[in-house]
Amino acid sequence: MDEAELELDPWCVREERLDLDRLGWSESIFALSNGHLGLRGNLEEGEPFGVPGTFLSGVHELRPLPYAEAGYGFPESGQTVINVTNGKVIRLLVDDEPFDVRYGTLRWHVRTLDLRAGLLHREVEWCSPAGQGMRIRTTRLVSLTQRAIAAIRYEVEPLDEPARVVLQSELIVNEPLHAPRAADPRVAAVLRAPLAAEEHHCSDGRAALVHRARRSGLRVAAAMDHEVDAPTIVTSDIECRSDLGRYTVSTRLEPGQRLTMVKLLGYGWSSVRSTPALRDQVIAAITAAKSCGWAELVAEQREFVESYWRCADVTIEGDPEVQLGVRFGMFQVLQAAARSEGQAIPAKGLTGTGYDGHAFWDSDAFVVPLLSQTYPPAARHAIRWRHSTLPAARDRAEALRLDGASFPWRTISGEECSGYWPAGTAAFHVNAAVADALVHHVDVTGEEETEAELGVDLLVATARLWRSLGHHAADERFHIDGVTGPDEYSAIVDDNVYTNLMAQRNLRAAAAACARHPERAADLGVTEAEAKEWSLAADAMYVPYDERLRVHPQDQGFTQHERWDFAETPPEAYPLFRSFPYFDLYRKQVAKQADLVLAMERRPECFDLEQKARNFNYYEALTVRDSSLSAGTQAVVAAELGHLDLAWAYLAETALIDLRDLHENTSDGLHLGSAANAWMAITRGFGGMRVVDGALSFAPRLPARIGEVEFGVIHRGSHIRVLVEDEHSTYRVVSGEPLVIAHHGEALTVGDDPVVRPNPAPPEFPEPQQPPGREPRRTDHWFGS
Amino acid sequence: MDEAELELDPWCVREERLDLDRLGWSESIFALSNGHLGLRGNLEEGEPFGVPGTFLSGVHELRPLPYAEAGYGFPESGQTVINVTNGKVIRLLVDDEPFDVRYGTLRWHVRTLDLRAGLLHREVEWCSPAGQGMRIRTTRLVSLTQRAIAAIRYEVEPLDEPARVVLQSELIVNEPLHAPRAADPRVAAVLRAPLAAEEHHCSDGRAALVHRARRSGLRVAAAMDHEVDAPTIVTSDIECRSDLGRYTVSTRLEPGQRLTMVKLLGYGWSSVRSTPALRDQVIAAITAAKSCGWAELVAEQREFVESYWRCADVTIEGDPEVQLGVRFGMFQVLQAAARSEGQAIPAKGLTGTGYDGHAFWDSDAFVVPLLSQTYPPAARHAIRWRHSTLPAARDRAEALRLDGASFPWRTISGEECSGYWPAGTAAFHVNAAVADALVHHVDVTGEEETEAELGVDLLVATARLWRSLGHHAADERFHIDGVTGPDEYSAIVDDNVYTNLMAQRNLRAAAAACARHPERAADLGVTEAEAKEWSLAADAMYVPYDERLRVHPQDQGFTQHERWDFAETPPEAYPLFRSFPYFDLYRKQVAKQADLVLAMERRPECFDLEQKARNFNYYEALTVRDSSLSAGTQAVVAAELGHLDLAWAYLAETALIDLRDLHENTSDGLHLGSAANAWMAITRGFGGMRVVDGALSFAPRLPARIGEVEFGVIHRGSHIRVLVEDEHSTYRVVSGEPLVIAHHGEALTVGDDPVVRPNPAPPEFPEPQQPPGREPRRTDHWFGS
Repeated sequence: MDEAELELDPWCVREERLDLDRLGWSESIFALSNGHLGLRGNLEEGEPFGVPGTFLSGVHELRPLPYAEAGYGFPESGQTVINVTNGKVIRLLVDDEPFDVRYGTLRWHVRTLDLRAGLLHREVEWCSPAGQGMRIRTTRLVSLTQRAIAAIRYEVEPLDEPARVVLQSELIVNEPLHAPRAADPRVAAVLRAPLAAEEHHCSDGRAALVHRARRSGLRVAAAMDHEVDAPTIVTSDIECRSDLGRYTVSTRLEPGQRLTMVKLLGYGWSSVRSTPALRDQVIAAITAAKSCGWAELVAEQREFVESYWRCADVTIEGDPEVQLGVRFGMFQVLQAAARSEGQAIPAKGLTGTGYDGHAFWDSDAFVVPLLSQTYPPAARHAIRWRHSTLPAARDRAEALRLDGASFPWRTISGEECSGYWPAGTAAFHVNAAVADALVHHVDVTGEEETEAELGVDLLVATARLWRSLGHHAADERFHIDGVTGPDEYSAIVDDNVYTNLMAQRNLRAAAAACARHPERAADLGVTEAEAKEWSLAADAMYVPYDERLRVHPQDQGFTQHERWDFAETPPEAYPLFRSFPYFDLYRKQVAKQADLVLAMERRPECFDLEQKARNFNYYEALTVRDSSLSAGTQAVVAAELGHLDLAWAYLAETALIDLRDLHENTSDGLHLGSAANAWMAITRGFGGMRVVDGALSFAPRLPARIGEVEFGVIHRGSHIRVLVEDEHSTYRVVSGEPLVIAHHGEALTVGDDPVVRPNPAPPEFPEPQQPPGREPRRTDHWFGS
Repeated sequence: MDEAELELDPWCVREERLDLDRLGWSESIFALSNGHLGLRGNLEEGEPFGVPGTFLSGVHELRPLPYAEAGYGFPESGQTVINVTNGKVIRLLVDDEPFDVRYGTLRWHVRTLDLRAGLLHREVEWCSPAGQGMRIRTTRLVSLTQRAIAAIRYEVEPLDEPARVVLQSELIVNEPLHAPRAADPRVAAVLRAPLAAEEHHCSDGRAALVHRARRSGLRVAAAMDHEVDAPTIVTSDIECRSDLGRYTVSTRLEPGQRLTMVKLLGYGWSSVRSTPALRDQVIAAITAAKSCGWAELVAEQREFVESYWRCADVTIEGDPEVQLGVRFGMFQVLQAAARSEGQAIPAKGLTGTGYDGHAFWDSDAFVVPLLSQTYPPAARHAIRWRHSTLPAARDRAEALRLDGASFPWRTISGEECSGYWPAGTAAFHVNAAVADALVHHVDVTGEEETEAELGVDLLVATARLWRSLGHHAADERFHIDGVTGPDEYSAIVDDNVYTNLMAQRNLRAAAAACARHPERAADLGVTEAEAKEWSLAADAMYVPYDERLRVHPQDQGFTQHERWDFAETPPEAYPLFRSFPYFDLYRKQVAKQADLVLAMERRPECFDLEQKARNFNYYEALTVRDSSLSAGTQAVVAAELGHLDLAWAYLAETALIDLRDLHENTSDGLHLGSAANAWMAITRGFGGMRVVDGALSFAPRLPARIGEVEFGVIHRGSHIRVLVEDEHSTYRVVSGEPLVIAHHGEALTVGDDPVVRPNPAPPEFPEPQQPPGREPRRTDHWFGS
């Protein structure tokens, strides 16, 4: 570790200079959001940009899904996130030249995302082509306490000579976009000018625009209002038309004098509310925000975020870069989820258009469990959203000739939007992830009302799906054939171990929940016979095993397939799905991501330690991590098996995926699944945390290079903090009732007095090997340097 | 069998009345072709029509293949057959009313396809809305002896009163089409106005038009010329413009007087020849045809067809309908292939736009073997076409990261056009079909020069593919994983028995051919070591077997899958792929078509009779025959196993598929694979014909209801005819050298003296059962009645 890294501010993501070639990346890194409204880190002056972006969670346009050869049950309509009204724009004219970083001289350009304050700062010293030196400072927030509100404080000051200054603060609709990178299915389809104007109005420094998406019919309203502070006389003007609102202020500043503008933005959308209602809603929101004022908005924001960190913060001694990466990821998860109320948490949050803005299984499998243990209200929102999509999931199951509900592989509003069924519809494990997120949430929060209100419906619907999807074969075992597991380099397989074990837990959980809530179950038509069938299927669930190799095949027959020829695969052939046809990937032993290893992480009680070690080493040699969802899971299991340095390297990879742009696609948006997985690596990996049937246990261990790690979780209302040091671990309940936990198998009761226990030596297993060139990555290409 | 059926003319397909609701169907039935040029049976007056169609084999347009989610190696461009210049149109004006069967009274409308003459006759008595009775007689041919030529003789005669008669004989380009039936992937994409005009010219009753397909750039020329015979003065006029040529004759006829016009049509196309060259080529062709005259064209046609029947005719005593169906099918195969020189034989020949005009594996697997044994020159054309596409197939293999060549699942000119890879690219068995057609052709014809010139290249390229596609696994067997076999209700499976056994033969044939042609092999870089690898792979080829059920699973694990719930599948749910998602079909035990049964038909030596019987009954219960390619193969194996009535029922189904429109899509074109399969059912089924390593054997047997069946094949230049009667069979070589054959295992030398041998009693096995409602079909809905 070099000196520069040691000097990293553990609470700030800081960019020391503006790299115009990497604007898309920095816009994702500096994106702000509250789960309802998201603003990419675009420059206030609007240009240059990588990808412009203002997103409202749930606002999408429809587009037809084309097929060269269509088939029964292929979804016909897709949903794509759209770039809504851009309120970030504040253009600056200095004398007669526009402030544009591509002209003149940029003496100084620093941006800082303050993870403790929830603010984005920008500080610029720019010398215009005519030689006028200017200082510009902006601070931006998307309010976590006032859901509809974003705000920007903009301050400009001439440095050397007096200057005439004009600020134009705008609302821009249907702004031009660059085309996405060609042929990359992960990038959103370009939707040009998706919004049709419905109403515009302005007066007294305030403007409001209402639009409607042409096909989906969703209505979007945006409003802005301003407060200006200047030492001299200012002229101002407000104007608007269908796709533009513009507030202009003009003044003359002496060197050292500052013009300050606070821009308040209010956003809202609805599928049912009328144009006037929506217009009034956003104006009311900015009226409330204006009555608070900038200082109070900032104070509320800081209080919200600090309160989160008090409970959830992770501290790391010995790796400042990972420290920052883990915090950055947790902050992004919080931003994506805090106010998502009623909407999905997309794979990229509201930070970019990647994956068309869709939500996938990783939200349920990785993001929600983190929230359940650090900020339960957001987890409840996410579970409630899935519950709200049950009608669409039931329709989908019916179309697929299955019982219960079949949740979509990818969606914004609940309908299946996957256009490639072997890696979409066939990936039924998403249903187990939905069920498991619920079960885990109830387990760690003790929220019985959530189980009663949402859980029984979700568990019954998914259990019915599994029962109809699988069958009792001649061997009397229950088999689930022809599905796709988490590993996207295998598809349409029989008896995927992860899927079967998750379905097993799902079936049992449904039966148990129905026993606890007999009235709700009866409303759903669940009979004793049906619940019994679920239990029988769960008990008979088949898990393939290769006796010869003494490992679990990822799915039936997997270990008999040809091994991928890694030696003949050059580095530039990765990710493999861009260089090889699916058919070749599917039929060989190569894993895009943890699959059997994820099964061991999620169902640890189903494998003994020696079995885990054999399995882990077998799959390590086959796993290329072309998916960003893999490394965190590998970290957890590596840590359990005593491969602590390897586990840390995987933690680093998953924690730094976006800060270091390891997949070279951060410009499309952040990888929230990875962010959550970094937290999993800390808590489940180095903390050894497990929750099985409501019992919380830890088995902490650190690699030698790391001084200490501390983290906190909420369990049944109590906040417990766990400090892991080399030799021992310390537990303390900092708020709430004492908890009974286990430390490496030893039961402890922990209250507000610290309980210290020694960490036993880790197990020793042979070191695993990754495919050549696919060892954990920690590139030298770092951020701001 | 009722009286009407007994009166069927065994040589004529006769339609007694025009059913306007079934025009598309009758247009396919009455399509004429020579393998280069195809004319659907559209009415001369142009309207009404079901699907207009004039096709030139190989002429196609390109269209982008869209994907909701694209992947590496997905073909980006598709090829679609286009409707070229329509020269069939001869419009008739009677006094001031156009002849249109939708107006006035159709007293009589009979069409007859004469299978012995190769002519389509139409005879009409029509009374115009004004009360003028007219008789119209037309005869149409597409010349099998003059490849570029079609001709129509049109005769009109007033019956009651004198009439003014105008004939307009036309060439029409880019005629309007109906939209295809929605959402049916088997129907061609509509391509509106695909042809851009390049040149038009007319004089003296002759017109020529040259056009070019906009994207593919293929150039098409069409010309017409006329001879008119009339009792009174005729005025005539020729005119043309870019998309139209029109020759008009006008006269006045007394009752009983006839106006006769012979219209000659010449067609040509090229990807390289210039506009003037192509124009002159078609004019030269009609000049030659005109110098022959109508009578000679008709005589040549009859001689060509009769010569075919002398060698190949099949006679059946006891089932006139099947008699006609078998002859109709053989005639259609001849029409599709006779002059295909250099082009593919599409699945529907040149009779419709179904499947976009693409050729599939069934051409190699069913059509070519028939031709090799009945009209070898056409089989050679087909093999030569595959050989000409080797460069595209090598490119495809390279893109797929495989060795050798990978022939396309569907194509017109050789490039892969499949837009759904699990049932396209993954169906590698097409390569074995290509190789097998060659091996079979050389086996039955003894054409060593074909093996040397085309065969070694094809066998080496396909053997290399198989070697790179499969692998020697830990069990030391050679496995081919992740492919799709013939049954399209399973996909992406391991060790499909049919595929593995065909690959085995392919690998061995390649090694043997290289040993016979060492220089050619050396040119291709084949070393002894490589040929040895092929043999090793073939010898180690894995064939899965289910010890518990004592049957061969169609592919690894197949018999462990859930059985399709046939009891809960209503009749209207068929074909299943229109009612159920692929994922559900793939993962359950249900077969669209013969797959393991086809393996037993193609590799009979790999299974003993008891094993065949167990396998057959197992798959009979699972096979729904949603594919038209299935029944013929089931007939062959059923006959071998002594299920002679069932075999006949399958023969009837495959022989009558188009005449009875059993799949309700004959309007898209005829099912040539079924037509060839009817012949397979006769020869391989009831004749028990097998060719193994050049040895020709028979094992004839008939069901009790059938008096006799006679068929003929060419073997190494000798024409042998086989007469099967209830008690015995009679063999006779009618031309060429004597042949050594086997009759039920007994070796016989057969010359021009009949050799008579008794038919042993068939084996007795338990009667198989089909899924409920999926027994062989013989509907009551018959043709013309």
